[in-house]
Amino acid sequence: MQTWGRLASADEARAAFRAAWSNHPRKEWIATADAYARVLAREVVSPEDLPAFRRSLMDGFACRSEDIRSVPVVLKLVGDVEMGAHAALTVRSGQTVRVPTGGAVPEGADVVVPIEQAEEGSNGVEIQAALTAGRHLIEVGEDVRDGESLLPAGRRLRAPDIGALMGLGLTRVEVYARPIVAILATGDEIIPPDACPSGSQVRNVNTYSLSAAVHAAGAIPRLEGIVHDDEEAQLQAARTALRHSDVLIISAGSSVGAKDLATRVIQQLGQPGVLVHGINIRPGKPTVLAVCDGKPVFGLPGQPVSVLNTFDQFVAPILREMQRLSVLPPEFSARLTEALRSADGREDHVRVRLELREGARWVTPIHGVSSMISTMTRADGIVVVPAGSPGYEADEEVRVRGIE
Amino acid sequence: MQTWGRLASADEARAAFRAAWSNHPRKEWIATADAYARVLAREVVSPEDLPAFRRSLMDGFACRSEDIRSVPVVLKLVGDVEMGAHAALTVRSGQTVRVPTGGAVPEGADVVVPIEQAEEGSNGVEIQAALTAGRHLIEVGEDVRDGESLLPAGRRLRAPDIGALMGLGLTRVEVYARPIVAILATGDEIIPPDACPSGSQVRNVNTYSLSAAVHAAGAIPRLEGIVHDDEEAQLQAARTALRHSDVLIISAGSSVGAKDLATRVIQQLGQPGVLVHGINIRPGKPTVLAVCDGKPVFGLPGQPVSVLNTFDQFVAPILREMQRLSVLPPEFSARLTEALRSADGREDHVRVRLELREGARWVTPIHGVSSMISTMTRADGIVVVPAGSPGYEADEEVRVRGIE
Repeated sequence: MQTWGRLASADEARAAFRAAWSNHPRKEWIATADAYARVLAREVVSPEDLPAFRRSLMDGFACRSEDIRSVPVVLKLVGDVEMGAHAALTVRSGQTVRVPTGGAVPEGADVVVPIEQAEEGSNGVEIQAALTAGRHLIEVGEDVRDGESLLPAGRRLRAPDIGALMGLGLTRVEVYARPIVAILATGDEIIPPDACPSGSQVRNVNTYSLSAAVHAAGAIPRLEGIVHDDEEAQLQAARTALRHSDVLIISAGSSVGAKDLATRVIQQLGQPGVLVHGINIRPGKPTVLAVCDGKPVFGLPGQPVSVLNTFDQFVAPILREMQRLSVLPPEFSARLTEALRSADGREDHVRVRLELREGARWVTPIHGVSSMISTMTRADGIVVVPAGSPGYEADEEVRVRGIE
Repeated sequence: MQTWGRLASADEARAAFRAAWSNHPRKEWIATADAYARVLAREVVSPEDLPAFRRSLMDGFACRSEDIRSVPVVLKLVGDVEMGAHAALTVRSGQTVRVPTGGAVPEGADVVVPIEQAEEGSNGVEIQAALTAGRHLIEVGEDVRDGESLLPAGRRLRAPDIGALMGLGLTRVEVYARPIVAILATGDEIIPPDACPSGSQVRNVNTYSLSAAVHAAGAIPRLEGIVHDDEEAQLQAARTALRHSDVLIISAGSSVGAKDLATRVIQQLGQPGVLVHGINIRPGKPTVLAVCDGKPVFGLPGQPVSVLNTFDQFVAPILREMQRLSVLPPEFSARLTEALRSADGREDHVRVRLELREGARWVTPIHGVSSMISTMTRADGIVVVPAGSPGYEADEEVRVRGIE
């Protein structure tokens, strides 16, 4: 008969488990297109320069900045750059070439004058703004440099990260494997949900609520069915389940005898076996935490409320850790490390990088044009400056929308 | 050539879209085991009483409360109830029957005395506590009554809800369909990620970042590839894509000509067509919002940062609304409508129901034993009372963990 000695506190229980468990996450290569919300197992370094060519940021006229130091000045239009094509032309002094946004800036040119600041006439293009070298274009590798770190190991891949990887031709990535979690329901009274109960039989609840909870924790549930309250049968089912899984959860029967049985079964699954038996929380006292030959094994109480509560408290954090999965809240507040200015009356969605300083959240605006992939991959969130607002001061607290 | 008049503000753009769009969510029946995070399209009413029999909450002795008004008293042990079995016996005056937690309480008995408050001897069972009728058992239908509402329409199904449905034998549920979102990339310069760019070609980023973002919004992405900057080709591809989808997103080229082209194509897809063309946000000005013969169609700017920002602002909320999907934050604070007491020194995880009063969050503790499924399905969150704490006062602000 079960007797409870002094119960472990929730924190003591976690500590006892951690002292006996080493986390050795499995890794796997998968298609980047399927890697949303997965965690990178290694840093991704760019295999090439991005852009690979000098790219225009505007529809405009590529020319030499030395030619437009005093304006207006008329330049000779010597050609067009097509989207996607090479810029075969070279721009010489006094000449200009029409380029689309995203097009290649031809050799010789070092500036793009937007169409709004130029006027095409019969005898050439009149340039109306004295722009300096480098305006309205990005240099080769200015977004991401060949060999530069694009994404750190441990990054939970978000939509912009998936796009950035594909943009660099990285169609496969190495991520941590989602742990496979075997779920075994036990109890003479438990029948499948599509069966009709008689007597004091009840339909299986816990296999399905646990399965959904395992899925929500980013892991893969493996449903192992229902086993009767028979030690040999449970031991065999548990051994088989554990062999094909990374983690085993046994949802024990709710009677004292059934709980004892589950504990005895877990004790025989491997070394060191049961670490915690009974935790000072409600609901969830009769919880078993174990490590059996390196694999986490959990005996959760059979009551449907208790099983989910103890899963949340003791199992879900381990499943997330096995994938090195940490999730930012969808929205949070943070303080600005520097002033954030917005001038032109647009509602400004500014990408920011998050860092923790003594536990407090600080964000720093990321500067860069919206064609630059690296401004997305480096960003942790977005701060909105309303239209017409001058912006925020350094140290000011702002709302940050996490990037999904 | 594109010219921008007065740009719509973000809110004006949303309002213009909503004025032209009616939400008619599709519904579908799916397996409950696969319904995690899906939204119920109709209220679920219980088809039966739960429990279907009087269930013991303790390992103990079922007897008649009138027999144990003065204790100690010795009762005659006339049998055992097996887990899952009928309680064939009837308990008469002076008699008792051993029952396990979760077992059926036999006819005649109206109370269960826990084993800790009884002592088995050679001449019977000595009952040591004068418990009153109804202690340590739940009546037929006390958890969920036949015909009672179990889950409201619009509920995003969480792990406990999946368990509860299975426990009632409801292995299929009607939910809102996940909208199918066609993603069409356009641009002469765009090539697939596994191709090697030459000239000013760039690999397709937006199809994949959008696909991940569509997935994150609970919808199903449908990748429609890349179409060149040719009006007829784009129109045909867009028409085909829209025919097989609920929503169409065209990621337009980044040059002015390409943006104009996407707008002309969308205008031909159905009535009323383009509603908003140009929004006063950065990044994301050249955004097109349209409704074409009832279906939402979005022309998003081609820059990889802009496309995700405008998706978040204008598309994701619509995709969630098409499934009536609203998500509680993982953790939030709220005030207690009543005091929350905790007596016995356990760390107490108390289920609470959330309600909004004038926009403020209030929570009310749900009372009920941990074997009752209805205490899970009615709960929106959990409040933890630390071990040793007396609890919280009415009106006190507490942290609530949302139920996943």
